[in-house]
Amino acid sequence: MPEFAERMSAMEKSANVIKGLFGAMNDPDLISFGGGAPAFEALPVDIVREIANDVIRKDKRGVEALQYGNVMGAEDLRQIVVKELLQPKGVEAKVENIMIINGGLEAMNLLCQLYIEPGDVILVESPSFVHSVEIFDMFEAKCIGVDMDDEGMDPDDLEKKIKLYKPKMVYVIPTFHNPTGRTLTLERRKRIAEFGGKYDVIILEDDPYRDIRYSGRDLLPIKAFDKTGHTVLANSFSKIFSPGSRLGYILANDAIMQKLFAAKTATNSHTSMLPQILCAEFFKRGYYPNHHKMICDLYRERRDAMIESIDKFFPEGTKRVFPDGGLFTWVELPGGINTTELLAESVKNPDVKVAFVAGEGFFVEGDGKGNNCMRISYGSVPPEKIKMGIKRLGKLICEKIK
Amino acid sequence: MPEFAERMSAMEKSANVIKGLFGAMNDPDLISFGGGAPAFEALPVDIVREIANDVIRKDKRGVEALQYGNVMGAEDLRQIVVKELLQPKGVEAKVENIMIINGGLEAMNLLCQLYIEPGDVILVESPSFVHSVEIFDMFEAKCIGVDMDDEGMDPDDLEKKIKLYKPKMVYVIPTFHNPTGRTLTLERRKRIAEFGGKYDVIILEDDPYRDIRYSGRDLLPIKAFDKTGHTVLANSFSKIFSPGSRLGYILANDAIMQKLFAAKTATNSHTSMLPQILCAEFFKRGYYPNHHKMICDLYRERRDAMIESIDKFFPEGTKRVFPDGGLFTWVELPGGINTTELLAESVKNPDVKVAFVAGEGFFVEGDGKGNNCMRISYGSVPPEKIKMGIKRLGKLICEKIK
Repeated sequence: MPEFAERMSAMEKSANVIKGLFGAMNDPDLISFGGGAPAFEALPVDIVREIANDVIRKDKRGVEALQYGNVMGAEDLRQIVVKELLQPKGVEAKVENIMIINGGLEAMNLLCQLYIEPGDVILVESPSFVHSVEIFDMFEAKCIGVDMDDEGMDPDDLEKKIKLYKPKMVYVIPTFHNPTGRTLTLERRKRIAEFGGKYDVIILEDDPYRDIRYSGRDLLPIKAFDKTGHTVLANSFSKIFSPGSRLGYILANDAIMQKLFAAKTATNSHTSMLPQILCAEFFKRGYYPNHHKMICDLYRERRDAMIESIDKFFPEGTKRVFPDGGLFTWVELPGGINTTELLAESVKNPDVKVAFVAGEGFFVEGDGKGNNCMRISYGSVPPEKIKMGIKRLGKLICEKIK
Repeated sequence: MPEFAERMSAMEKSANVIKGLFGAMNDPDLISFGGGAPAFEALPVDIVREIANDVIRKDKRGVEALQYGNVMGAEDLRQIVVKELLQPKGVEAKVENIMIINGGLEAMNLLCQLYIEPGDVILVESPSFVHSVEIFDMFEAKCIGVDMDDEGMDPDDLEKKIKLYKPKMVYVIPTFHNPTGRTLTLERRKRIAEFGGKYDVIILEDDPYRDIRYSGRDLLPIKAFDKTGHTVLANSFSKIFSPGSRLGYILANDAIMQKLFAAKTATNSHTSMLPQILCAEFFKRGYYPNHHKMICDLYRERRDAMIESIDKFFPEGTKRVFPDGGLFTWVELPGGINTTELLAESVKNPDVKVAFVAGEGFFVEGDGKGNNCMRISYGSVPPEKIKMGIKRLGKLICEKIK
């Protein structure tokens, strides 16, 4: 058989990490804090049925939903992004600068198409989101980690590494970061936005969790401080509407959007129309505010149950993040415990049967960094199961430390 | 701003051709034989509403439709591909070798991810499908045209060029070819399948029109003759279910499918779930046979009206293809008429107002080849408008020849 392109071997490492996650997610007996999926209670099933039943008609939007659509996406969904999702968050945008994409992740693929040649450097938070890194690997980028602390990506380390490595792109998840749940402070957002113009580097702001904040104060996105057009904002409807619909959007300046048009056409023509129309109607019919409140209440309760349980059942010396939104917390274990080994045991041990994601796979350094860390996802687990699972996992950890 | 990657300038030419097409499609006063979209009467709007109303429920498949799904696609839709779309056409396949993708076109993007390094050669029919060539351009492949005649791609010229250029891939649209409507003969299918193994080259068989045959005898796909795994079959639900749903599939051997899993994950995680479930139910509930008969009857009538009108109103010396299915015919005009100039006039002239696609843009040679040709799409135009439009266009052409 013909040889595969070089990029396919570049991505083998990350593909393996991911298969590990999916394996853990599929065992029905587990209490899984592994996957990053929203709660099934957070999916607007009944609303979507009602809308579908009303609009999939020849005299309404049924033909539009089933026929070829625009590369840029459904016009009214793009307007909703501008007026309901960006404007209230302090970002002024024109509809022409919004493209609807096939899930938030597609933004990373498209931006790589635009900018990345093999060997180009992308700076990412250390740790960062596995699926995005996998995309960067496929484009044969060299990913280099930037230090982070509880206030998010460290701008001093970032500036140092921008000067040192001359990256094409800085990839940052500023709000309720995956995998750590941390949020970048306002001061740091401003500084990172400035670096875009100062060092002529694309700031790729991936912000899929920002709209599910359930405590603390909203922060302007990095894009709000972008005066030079170097920041590209990617977001997703996965957490506020439905992940299976694969809907996301990109906000970028005119020159970038023109190239995105070509890259999107040459990826899959356009995003599926029916989900776009159902999602647009979901907003237009005014369902979003109540739905949003419902899911925030749901996740807040789960966050509280999770943090309380960790504080109660995990050993002294454990560090954990208190997230003001999103679906994750990040735990650093004391006592030299290797979380990859812990995971192998905790999913099999019949007294534990708990899954999470071991921290090591989120670090591009690949030198064992984060091997005492774990990403714990609470979004899709009810509070009583959270308590039960963390109690069982905590007991196993405490036994190992003794 | 940072420089765009080299691949973005490689694709500029084809992007311009496409914008031309879309512009012509959007004028509501035109009779447009331009776009390749199915007829709106061929969209199963009422059926989809009925299915949606029934399955988007928490106790049925509503949660599955809105939650994250599998990279490979919905299990039952993959089974339908195997049992209802491939087996009856002489292709034996396992479900594990089927991936559901975001429209048929995504297959070309994913296969390029797997195989194409800048400078690699892809052999394509001369003429070929603009959007696929655009993808090949984005991957900086060198596209080289292979001669075709009324029996499809010429295998002698293909073999000569395989030896000469050592291509990574041969891209072929065997059935009711876009843009010409021609169908590759059975003998040629066998030979091309053999070339895969003999010369260790991927045969990428793009077959989105094959299921809408309305005259003549069905032919086995190239994949049916593939003994070495070198043929990858791509197909689409756009013509038999709905193009806006962006659903297609790939059939490939195990080794290729494993890499496709990685490439698809790093493109957009998975194809939108709701359209997959609606499409699967469309087949499972037995709607396909009647729907298929209805659309074949519809397109046959339009094909007949088109061919009859061309034969009646176009000047002597005109050559046209008689397609046994699909949505297009291909016309070669006599008298040295340049169809790009003709198009500019025919869309503006108030006595004509007819659009088609000028032939030149479909040829990768870029040396004026096909500048007396036109792709005429009849799928979305009712018979009486076909007659009216071709009469007006024919009158303009005849006046130019005088």
